[in-house]
Amino acid sequence: MKTINIGILGFGVVGAGVAKLLIEKKQLLESRIGAVLNLKTIADIDTTTDRGIELGSTALVNDAKLIIKDPDIDIIVETIGGETIAKDFIFKALENKKHVVTANKALLAGFGNELVKTARHNQVDLGFEASCGGCMPIIKSLRESLVANDIQSMSAILNGTCNYILTKISKDGSAFDVALKDAQDLGFAEAEPSLDIDGYDTAHKLAILNSLAHGMEINLKDIHVEGIRNITPVDIEFAKSFGYTIKLLAIGKKHDDHVEARVHPTMISNSNPLSHVDKSMNAIAIEADATGRTMLYGHGAGMLPTASAVLSDIADIARNIISKTKRRVPILGYPEDNIKSIPILPMSELYTRYYLRFEAQDHPGVLSKISGILGENNISIKSVHQKGRQSNGKVRVVMITHIAKEAWVQAALARIEKTDSVVGDPVIIRIEEITQ
Amino acid sequence: MKTINIGILGFGVVGAGVAKLLIEKKQLLESRIGAVLNLKTIADIDTTTDRGIELGSTALVNDAKLIIKDPDIDIIVETIGGETIAKDFIFKALENKKHVVTANKALLAGFGNELVKTARHNQVDLGFEASCGGCMPIIKSLRESLVANDIQSMSAILNGTCNYILTKISKDGSAFDVALKDAQDLGFAEAEPSLDIDGYDTAHKLAILNSLAHGMEINLKDIHVEGIRNITPVDIEFAKSFGYTIKLLAIGKKHDDHVEARVHPTMISNSNPLSHVDKSMNAIAIEADATGRTMLYGHGAGMLPTASAVLSDIADIARNIISKTKRRVPILGYPEDNIKSIPILPMSELYTRYYLRFEAQDHPGVLSKISGILGENNISIKSVHQKGRQSNGKVRVVMITHIAKEAWVQAALARIEKTDSVVGDPVIIRIEEITQ
Repeated sequence: MKTINIGILGFGVVGAGVAKLLIEKKQLLESRIGAVLNLKTIADIDTTTDRGIELGSTALVNDAKLIIKDPDIDIIVETIGGETIAKDFIFKALENKKHVVTANKALLAGFGNELVKTARHNQVDLGFEASCGGCMPIIKSLRESLVANDIQSMSAILNGTCNYILTKISKDGSAFDVALKDAQDLGFAEAEPSLDIDGYDTAHKLAILNSLAHGMEINLKDIHVEGIRNITPVDIEFAKSFGYTIKLLAIGKKHDDHVEARVHPTMISNSNPLSHVDKSMNAIAIEADATGRTMLYGHGAGMLPTASAVLSDIADIARNIISKTKRRVPILGYPEDNIKSIPILPMSELYTRYYLRFEAQDHPGVLSKISGILGENNISIKSVHQKGRQSNGKVRVVMITHIAKEAWVQAALARIEKTDSVVGDPVIIRIEEITQ
Repeated sequence: MKTINIGILGFGVVGAGVAKLLIEKKQLLESRIGAVLNLKTIADIDTTTDRGIELGSTALVNDAKLIIKDPDIDIIVETIGGETIAKDFIFKALENKKHVVTANKALLAGFGNELVKTARHNQVDLGFEASCGGCMPIIKSLRESLVANDIQSMSAILNGTCNYILTKISKDGSAFDVALKDAQDLGFAEAEPSLDIDGYDTAHKLAILNSLAHGMEINLKDIHVEGIRNITPVDIEFAKSFGYTIKLLAIGKKHDDHVEARVHPTMISNSNPLSHVDKSMNAIAIEADATGRTMLYGHGAGMLPTASAVLSDIADIARNIISKTKRRVPILGYPEDNIKSIPILPMSELYTRYYLRFEAQDHPGVLSKISGILGENNISIKSVHQKGRQSNGKVRVVMITHIAKEAWVQAALARIEKTDSVVGDPVIIRIEEITQ
């Protein structure tokens, strides 16, 4: 039986998960793949901490070069994360003609196009199923299963930390800070949580998925990103009263000559299956012209769910090696020469529906003033909901608009803010409808 | 650019869907796969009906041999269905060293092991993504994505007709016959619906999925199958009052030396995501040791969703051909020599929880008699629900049991039926818990 040698860079949570599966599932993997997947070497600066894994003949070294330059190693798994040393290591591994598997969405979103070029130049594979949606087979679905479909839209919950916090606020009425603290205590959120809660991690994943869905270059910088710091129990309660749920969604849509790519808190109807995706679970709903609506659901993070996705990439490359082929499926789903640069719609050009909440003075004429400014900016109001005077003397006014242009809404809100009718910043949450 | 020639056997709904995608998505498929997928010939006994597809250079013939024996054709798609001529055609195509793609679950469930042997002997591929769950990538997930997982359990809604009827009964309180008629009028159910509503179609799919999940030979004959003919609005209302929904589930579970494989109406909690899968939609929930719980959701039937899955198989084979390889992924997920014969647990040996409903005489001592017989058969009752006297003078008694053995329950029910305490057959619906 052929032996395929593997090296892992980084022995943190994900690296340990990959090592655990390679070692403990050795027999299962052999019986499925028909080759020995031999974990030859792991490199980490910390070679002493016990990760609870019986390494056997696997070497643990503190120098990544011992993997990157090892002529016997076929596949290198990068689980360090981030864009500093991980970037150097991956480029060097590709240049040394190693197949690379990574879960590093930040790196792919920032430098994916260059990585794809380097992999092509060196005629090796680059796998990244674990970069988006954890164990869900979303990369494989876009590259292989949906091959005869034009992907019309994707809407996805791709960050377990944010989804946990939003679920906590929704179920318990907790304030954001309390829910964040709870998520940190339970290990769902990092001590420095901004990558997650400000939406950047979700945007990294959307940049990758949009590229695969539409055959476009990876473009992170033009994605509109808003996080969940300003979501309050008040808005979640209003949403509930309308039959809606608030989720941090990654939204990617294809139009004739551009795509939408945006990450922001979104109100979705409770008839949308994504509204039932709670706690730290992830899901992606895809609308495509042949399949109609499909959805994948699963753990988007965690040691073994992430490692399971890494192993699916390793198995793909191993099956290529024993089939004496490589680069059988294009890295971004289309052969590199067919990948286009497709512009992302500027946010100001977006048309959608809006939930707007104002803290208004309890004076006669205030409602008329707000709605008058909205009307002057072409914004048509579907419904108005006003709650009685609060202890601070203000009244809460919530308006749901018909479809309006983002630029109009922003212009109207800027004018409303300047009046003496409202206090504080208006709250704006976009509403996403499903088409079935 | 390389040209790969394709022939389709059968120009019904699915065949027309495959033809439509191959013709109308020619450019998309070329740009993704880097080869021309040329639909050379379609064979059907009816060569005159207009299917609304512009065939261009594709020949429509009435003799399948013109495809099966055509030396230029690389891939043959069988969309005839059933086990008579389709079976002959597929075996002949494999023997002529053609790669075959089919959606024919009845044939795979009945003759899959022989088909796999024939494909191996002739060193060709056999694709069947469209056989289970329509457009959902369930076959690919089991063969490729979950490769490092032991699959612990699968529970799935795999028949859109049954799910439509159960949803209709649940939402409208319709009787079964009314809901079936409605499904037939809308085209969700066949004029002769027994393959669907008696559970056999679901069992065919479970036989295939169990094989892929556990590396076992396809075994249809030992699967326990019950359909939905006896589901009444009364039981659905009781289920609702307990926070449960009734679905026709395919259940496959792995134990140390055997598997469970059963198809029957099942009560599941409303916290189970499968309970929200309504109308004709399909879904499969998989519990695996590395991923935890995952779910796929989508259209399980229909012209284009099914064709989309067929195209994913065609693309896989086409990518093999241009990569100069074949049989890269084993047909049943494991190389043939590693596939075992794993026994299916006899239904009488099952342990689960039960919903039991009796139409009881309104006499003193009846409840004591029923519960006494259950107790004598080791069945412990979790809760009892009794509704007042109906117009026929009977009272409805519903009991939810703790975990009990199927043999005990059947023995107890046989005894209870023989008493003068109840009229008619007791209703028995198994309850399935999710583990998270």
